[in-house]
Amino acid sequence: MTDPETREQTVLDAVGERRELVNQGIQEEMPIKRPERLWEASRYLLDAGGKRLRPTVLLVVGEALMDVEPLSTDYREFPSLADQPVDLMAAAVSVEVIQTFTLIHDDIMDDDDLRRGVPAVHKEFDLDTAILAGDTLYSSAFEIMLNANAPSSEVVAAMDTLASTCTKICEGQSLDVAFEERADVLPEEYLEMIEQKTAVLYAASAAIAAELLSADDATVDALYGYGLDIGRAFQIQDDVLDLTVPSEQLGKQRGSDLVENKQTLITVHAREQGVDVDNLVDTDSVEDVTEAEIDEAVQALEESGSIAYANDKARELVERGKERLECLPDNEARDLLCDIADYLIERGY
Amino acid sequence: MTDPETREQTVLDAVGERRELVNQGIQEEMPIKRPERLWEASRYLLDAGGKRLRPTVLLVVGEALMDVEPLSTDYREFPSLADQPVDLMAAAVSVEVIQTFTLIHDDIMDDDDLRRGVPAVHKEFDLDTAILAGDTLYSSAFEIMLNANAPSSEVVAAMDTLASTCTKICEGQSLDVAFEERADVLPEEYLEMIEQKTAVLYAASAAIAAELLSADDATVDALYGYGLDIGRAFQIQDDVLDLTVPSEQLGKQRGSDLVENKQTLITVHAREQGVDVDNLVDTDSVEDVTEAEIDEAVQALEESGSIAYANDKARELVERGKERLECLPDNEARDLLCDIADYLIERGY
Repeated sequence: MTDPETREQTVLDAVGERRELVNQGIQEEMPIKRPERLWEASRYLLDAGGKRLRPTVLLVVGEALMDVEPLSTDYREFPSLADQPVDLMAAAVSVEVIQTFTLIHDDIMDDDDLRRGVPAVHKEFDLDTAILAGDTLYSSAFEIMLNANAPSSEVVAAMDTLASTCTKICEGQSLDVAFEERADVLPEEYLEMIEQKTAVLYAASAAIAAELLSADDATVDALYGYGLDIGRAFQIQDDVLDLTVPSEQLGKQRGSDLVENKQTLITVHAREQGVDVDNLVDTDSVEDVTEAEIDEAVQALEESGSIAYANDKARELVERGKERLECLPDNEARDLLCDIADYLIERGY
Repeated sequence: MTDPETREQTVLDAVGERRELVNQGIQEEMPIKRPERLWEASRYLLDAGGKRLRPTVLLVVGEALMDVEPLSTDYREFPSLADQPVDLMAAAVSVEVIQTFTLIHDDIMDDDDLRRGVPAVHKEFDLDTAILAGDTLYSSAFEIMLNANAPSSEVVAAMDTLASTCTKICEGQSLDVAFEERADVLPEEYLEMIEQKTAVLYAASAAIAAELLSADDATVDALYGYGLDIGRAFQIQDDVLDLTVPSEQLGKQRGSDLVENKQTLITVHAREQGVDVDNLVDTDSVEDVTEAEIDEAVQALEESGSIAYANDKARELVERGKERLECLPDNEARDLLCDIADYLIERGY
C-alpha cells in the first residue's frame, strides 16, 4: 500500500504536469478577442489558477481506457475505440470552463469576495460583467466541446452529458441556497444537493472521456459513478477543510461556511446530535469573526462526532468510487485514478 | 401586392396558431419539477407571454424547405431531406428558451423592472434566483435541442450554431453596455452590435431548421442571412417603437431608451447630425420623465431625419432578407416568411 504522502506527491505531480497542458489548451481555445473587456473578465478566474482536477480526471480516464502510458500521447490527437483520433484536450478545457462559469455566478449569489486568492469577478470587474462573463464561458464550453472531433454520435452523447450536468448544477445550487433558510436539512438531502451541485461535474468529466472515445454504455456508466462518488467525497472534504485549514492557505476566511450559515454535512450531522449549530459563531460577517470563535466551534463539532462522521462518509464514497474503476484495464493510469480518489480526501487544502 | 393591414393579419394569425403549439411544447419540454422555486422562476417569463416570433420563423422555414402546406404537418414528426423525421418543435422551443434566458439576464444588467407587462424575474423573485433561472434555461435549451432527433451530424451542426449564437449574444450585450459610456458610436458599430445582440438568434432560428432537416450548406447560409437581416430590422423597429408607441401598449415607459441613455440607431444618427442627444431628456429615471418631455425629444429626432433614417435602414434590410429566401421552393410558407419580414417593420408594437 502506498502511504498518503507518497500518494499526494504522485497525484500533485500528475495534476501539475497536466495543468500546464490544460492551461495551454485554455489559451488556445479561448483567446482574448473583441470585446476585450468581456473576454478578459471571462478569462480572469480561469487564469487565476485552480488545480485543474476535473480536466485531469478526464484526461487520465482517457489514458486508462485506451491503455496508454500516462503523458505518452498527444491529447489533441488521442487514439479512440472508433477509427478517428479525438481531441481530448478540447473536452478537458470544456469542463474546466463550465466549472469556472459556475464559480463566477456562485460567487455573486454567495457574495463571496475572494476566489483562488484573488477578488471574485464581480468584485474585480462589476456585477453585470460577471454575469455576462459567466454566460460567455457557458456557451464557450459547448463550442469547445464541439471541437473534440469525435464521431457525431459520440459528440452528441458528450453534449447531452454536459448540458444535463449544467442543469443539475443549477438545481444543486438552488437547493444549496434554499437550505440556508432551513434548520432541518437531513444528511441524505445534503448528500443529494452536493451530488447535483458538485459531484456531477466530476461524473461528467469521467463519463465524457469515455463517451468521446466510443466506450460502451456500461463503462460510461461506471465512470460516471466514479465521478459522482469522488465528487461528493471532494465536497465533503472541502467542508472539513473550511474548518481545519488556516485562512491564508484556504485563500479565504477559515470557518466561513459556519459564519455564513451554510449547511455542510458536518453541521447537518451536528444538528441531528442536538448541537445548537446556528449559535456556534455569533457574527454573520467573515470580517468580524475571530480565530478563537472558530476554534471553539470546531471543538464542539469534534465533540459531537460530526467531523469524524464527515470523514467516514468521504472515505466510504472514495472506496466505492475506486471499485467502479474495475471496468477499466489494469494499468498505471487506472492506479492514478485510484490515487486521485484517495488524494481528494487526504489533501490538506 | 398585399396591403400592410392584410399582411399584419396574416402574420398575426400564423404566429398565433403556432404560439399555441409552441406554448404546449414549452410545457412538455420544461415541466415544473423539483426544486420547484427554480423551475417556477425559469418558467415565469416564458409563461408571461411573448410573440414567439423566433420559433415561428424556425417552424415556417421548415415548412417552406420541405414544401409542405403550413400547419398541415406534425412538428414533432417533421419530414426531412434525410430518411428520418425530425422533432422541429424541440428546436423551436430551444430557441425561445435561449431568448428568454437572455431577457432575464439582460433585465438584471439594465435594471429593468418590467418585461412583457409583468415584473422582471429579478423583481418578482430576487437577483440570485434570476441569475440561476437564466442559467437553468441556458443548459435546458441545449438539452431540448438534443431532443430534435435528427441525424447526429445535423444535431452537431445545430448545437454548434446555437452555442456560437449564445456567445455572440453575450458579445453583443457587452458592446451594448460599453456603448452607454460612449458618445461617438458610429451607425456601423451600432449595426454590428445589434447583429450580435439580437439578429443572430433570428439567424440561428432560420439556419437551425435547415440544418436539422439536412439542407445543403448554401441554403443554411442563405437562411442564416435572412435571419440576420430581419433580426436587425426588428431591433431597429423596436428602437423606433420605443419612441412612438404609448407606454401601456409597450408594456414599459415610452422613450425609456432615451431616458436611460441607451444607444439606438436613431440616437447614433442624430448625434452625427449635431443633435445634443444626451440632453434631449433631462431626467435619468423612467419614473420622473413626463410625456411632454418625450414628445419634444421625438420631435427633435424627427427634425434631424433620424427616425426616417432608421425606418429606411430597416426597410433596406427587410428587402435584402426577402431576396435571400429565393433559395427556398416557391410556396405558401415562403410567402409567409416574406410577410413576417415586412411585418417586423410595419408592426405597431
